[in-house]
Amino acid sequence: MRAVDIIIKKRDHFALSKEEINFFIQGITDGSIPDYQASAWAMAVLLNGMTDQETTDLTQAMAASGETLDLSHIAPIVVDKHSTGGVGDKTTLVVAPLVAACGLPVGKMSGRGLGFSGGTLDKLDSIPGYRTDLSKQEFLDQLDRLGIVLTGQSADLAPADRILYKLRDVTGTVQSLPLIASSVMSKKLAAGANAILLDVKVGYGAFMKTLEDARKLAQIMVAIGDLSGRKVRAILSDMNQPLGVAVGNALELLEAIDTLHGHGPQDFLEHCLSSASHMLVLGHKAGSLQEARAIVEQKLNDGSAWEMFRSLVITQGGDVSYIDHPEKLPSAPVKIILKAERDGFIAEVNAQVVGETAVELGAGRAKKEDSIDLGVGILVHIKVGEKIKKGDPLFSILAKNDASAQAAAGRLLSSLKWSENPVEALPLFYETIG
Amino acid sequence: MRAVDIIIKKRDHFALSKEEINFFIQGITDGSIPDYQASAWAMAVLLNGMTDQETTDLTQAMAASGETLDLSHIAPIVVDKHSTGGVGDKTTLVVAPLVAACGLPVGKMSGRGLGFSGGTLDKLDSIPGYRTDLSKQEFLDQLDRLGIVLTGQSADLAPADRILYKLRDVTGTVQSLPLIASSVMSKKLAAGANAILLDVKVGYGAFMKTLEDARKLAQIMVAIGDLSGRKVRAILSDMNQPLGVAVGNALELLEAIDTLHGHGPQDFLEHCLSSASHMLVLGHKAGSLQEARAIVEQKLNDGSAWEMFRSLVITQGGDVSYIDHPEKLPSAPVKIILKAERDGFIAEVNAQVVGETAVELGAGRAKKEDSIDLGVGILVHIKVGEKIKKGDPLFSILAKNDASAQAAAGRLLSSLKWSENPVEALPLFYETIG
Repeated sequence: MRAVDIIIKKRDHFALSKEEINFFIQGITDGSIPDYQASAWAMAVLLNGMTDQETTDLTQAMAASGETLDLSHIAPIVVDKHSTGGVGDKTTLVVAPLVAACGLPVGKMSGRGLGFSGGTLDKLDSIPGYRTDLSKQEFLDQLDRLGIVLTGQSADLAPADRILYKLRDVTGTVQSLPLIASSVMSKKLAAGANAILLDVKVGYGAFMKTLEDARKLAQIMVAIGDLSGRKVRAILSDMNQPLGVAVGNALELLEAIDTLHGHGPQDFLEHCLSSASHMLVLGHKAGSLQEARAIVEQKLNDGSAWEMFRSLVITQGGDVSYIDHPEKLPSAPVKIILKAERDGFIAEVNAQVVGETAVELGAGRAKKEDSIDLGVGILVHIKVGEKIKKGDPLFSILAKNDASAQAAAGRLLSSLKWSENPVEALPLFYETIG
Repeated sequence: MRAVDIIIKKRDHFALSKEEINFFIQGITDGSIPDYQASAWAMAVLLNGMTDQETTDLTQAMAASGETLDLSHIAPIVVDKHSTGGVGDKTTLVVAPLVAACGLPVGKMSGRGLGFSGGTLDKLDSIPGYRTDLSKQEFLDQLDRLGIVLTGQSADLAPADRILYKLRDVTGTVQSLPLIASSVMSKKLAAGANAILLDVKVGYGAFMKTLEDARKLAQIMVAIGDLSGRKVRAILSDMNQPLGVAVGNALELLEAIDTLHGHGPQDFLEHCLSSASHMLVLGHKAGSLQEARAIVEQKLNDGSAWEMFRSLVITQGGDVSYIDHPEKLPSAPVKIILKAERDGFIAEVNAQVVGETAVELGAGRAKKEDSIDLGVGILVHIKVGEKIKKGDPLFSILAKNDASAQAAAGRLLSSLKWSENPVEALPLFYETIG
């Protein structure tokens, strides 16, 4: 088999066989296929597409390119979740302990933020001592003992995906549904969970800007799951406006803690309860979403979810006093509140603009190598559809200095659209696939 | 400007600007754009195409990536020719001295053979001492003094094309009309001639298998010439069967010598006279093809073309005794003649099969690094349409040993198709463009 013949086959619109895909991914992993062949192939895949079977074969080949975790000895079903990324999306911090508190093991490897999209690991960095670099063995032991793990991706998981993603980033081959789907799912397959909830964000602040693209991506990922013997469900959720109130690392952790205590923002709380309910159904802990909902509400309200989160922090080495007394968490020296200078209805709060403003404040990274400031961020006090009076607070800005705060203020006001007439609120969810 | 944005623009079906193409080719040349970006871009070009203006900008950028020759001080018009490559195509060896003998300077840089396609330089290697590595200054001086140069491509000509071609060869991006056209024409533009005859071969033994593809390629190359201020004409000529009789390096040189003496095979002679006539019209040495034809026939018949070839060989350091006494040229120890075992009409002599058989005999290269045997080859005694009787000679095989000759014999018989009924002869030319 020759790499160039596989490239030519895809170039000429033919479907690749499992053997050809395995050969190609193996070659990318061991370096026998050079990056200039991989990038030409990726462009051919982007432009000519892949069948669900090809995408599944690609996903499995990438999953098999490194270590894979076998969780079958831990429980009949271990669940995982994945969000395609958004602004203010601190869902994992609440949902993982909530689901684990319901008796369903949650083993999750999270990522760091990039661009306007935040990452769970950065938020957890607000807790001194919390380890996000567990080894494979530590992951397995803790999942078995505690029923919950929230750590970073082990370096040995799906190395082919890491090589290919780095190349796609600089060759214009990121925006391919088969390549995006296989990148996400290869890591999920390798991480071993047999039930996976995918939260596919759609809107201004998401990777997928249209419902149609989000739906296609969700369908492919669910198909990969089906063809790989995993139970996968995708929820398409709104990311036109930020989720919840807080955007920024310590701010989002604080909001997650509030939510675990039953005091979170309504939209975020609802997002968490729905997500957790889906996971319970996927994990056979409930026969229906209604039944699941009753269980998760109880585990949130009786403090079990909070206790699970505390145990998680303690077990992974975090200083629990920081979450028991969140005033100890990193904060910013300058805080200003932007107030409405008019009456009206909120027609748009562009999540991408809010996310980019948070990056400029220092809460996120423009490039992977950038360092971040855990205390800075934005509180978004408004939602699309709300009726606002002059003087009502719109945003709070937490910044390292006045100049930074003022620059953010101008930018944030540009994220808003107003209407004289009533505007409908945005839905939290659009649909469920799988 | 960033390379990835240019890739994305082409990926998304937009036409690239001259500045973008210049930036990309400059980057390929100086190494600031890595090969994995170049290959992704090449795949996007192959799949999404280029306008004539883009292809012209690409050609000019590649021509400008290295040295360019200015021939304007030598003569008002210098002509060049290029064949897209075929089997038995020794045209340059006859046409270049013939045209030069008509008083029109011919400055040509030729290539070596690859695959089933032969190359002029390999044929010239049969003459001991003949130099194919003239420097730029030697090229200019000889063109000025003698009016003819036949050498290899200077290493400094269109280096971007060399880099890109090497990459295309291993990334499935060879078969793109804009990339093929710009590759050919960039070297022609850089070599400085202002009138260029393109011999676009079509058929089994050519790069272009269909008349439609050959026509498209010819049209693009003529358009590049027009947009670059050069006079370019393309002739589409048949390469379903080998051209002339001889296939193999010394054998083809011998046939060229015979033709310069007026004894060449009819089809090859006609091909040379037509090509030379087109070049005279392009070079303003004749007002019409009829007028040009009379001149070239005279210069062939009165020995001027042969004398010009002798002068060329002597000037470039070749031992002229080898062409004056061609029995001194390299030859093969084993010669067998394949005879017809039936009566019938020849319906097909597949030029690709004949060319591949010649490569197997040692006359050509499967890979660039392979060495070749100058003496071996094939004489093709038949043409499509001919009526053959049992016992008539079909092929002569010149081989290094019996085993090699026997293997070639079997292969050559498979290149033939027979018919019980009369078959029309193949045309020499299909059409002229430009």
